[in-house]
Amino acid sequence: MAHLTVSVEYGMHCLLWLVDSGDAPLSSRDLAELQGISPTFLAKIFTKLEKAGIVRATEGVRGGFVLAQNAGEISVLDVVDAIEGDKPLFDCQEIRGRCAVFGDQAPGWATAGTCSIHAVMLRAEKAMRDALASQSLADIASAVGRKAPPAFAQDVQGWIDRRTDSRARKSRVLSTTD
Amino acid sequence: MAHLTVSVEYGMHCLLWLVDSGDAPLSSRDLAELQGISPTFLAKIFTKLEKAGIVRATEGVRGGFVLAQNAGEISVLDVVDAIEGDKPLFDCQEIRGRCAVFGDQAPGWATAGTCSIHAVMLRAEKAMRDALASQSLADIASAVGRKAPPAFAQDVQGWIDRRTDSRARKSRVLSTTD
Repeated sequence: MAHLTVSVEYGMHCLLWLVDSGDAPLSSRDLAELQGISPTFLAKIFTKLEKAGIVRATEGVRGGFVLAQNAGEISVLDVVDAIEGDKPLFDCQEIRGRCAVFGDQAPGWATAGTCSIHAVMLRAEKAMRDALASQSLADIASAVGRKAPPAFAQDVQGWIDRRTDSRARKSRVLSTTD
Repeated sequence: MAHLTVSVEYGMHCLLWLVDSGDAPLSSRDLAELQGISPTFLAKIFTKLEKAGIVRATEGVRGGFVLAQNAGEISVLDVVDAIEGDKPLFDCQEIRGRCAVFGDQAPGWATAGTCSIHAVMLRAEKAMRDALASQSLADIASAVGRKAPPAFAQDVQGWIDRRTDSRARKSRVLSTTD
């Protein structure tokens, strides 16, 4: 099993659609179907992203999610922490104090400062987190955008418009038959 | 839960005792009791470390484990990979090809090269692994050694000698009564 779960992959891909959609909200169901993933699963991921202040929900027939901050200000680390909950690389149990030679009480020098093994893990964790913090959603959206042909953005917008119009029509029919 | 398990902490601490013991082997039971951890659990960890060529088993009454390489040549990354099995930071499921707009077949441009999200994760993973690779068991043993008073190494050696002598005596008694 990988250190980061598939939730990070699902969340990241759907956040990239929100970068492209700008002020036009997208529901988590539309995002999930556009990305070909489970809507129920994505809804849970978006609850975490909303709680972390990465996305904001808007109400109404055309309601959904928009980014709560500028895409250039949301780092990959923000998204990972929001979804995975700031999981440490290494959870030091301080077993250095349990040496049989110490008996019941470890001497002060044995438990002073950070354990030397933990210190190495903390440096490695910082290197990983710094790398994740150095990339924003805007950076990745720009890299993805360079790969896609110009017609792709229009195709996606067409797919979204058809979904939104279909929902608006259904809503009108429902309000007429009320 | 942390990314790395407690097995890494147990394995690392016991490998540091082997750095200090040099050519004198220590059994995984003695190592576990010296460190105050479960001998059964540590035996499983040492099976992995032996398989990865980090420790080597020696036979006999005074048998046990020694480091299979120079402590300066065994990196923390070697130990982590031996115990955790080279677990990736992020296991890309390539969901970029599942966009609803693509229909049954994703176009070549959509799945060419490394996914831009995966690329960020690979860079973060490399930064973490480089940091773990930059520290050897000798580096950490040296940092720990600087914290301990000179008498500590003698106390540990005394504890080990008493264990070894007691086992040798038991063995002599058994061979006499055969």
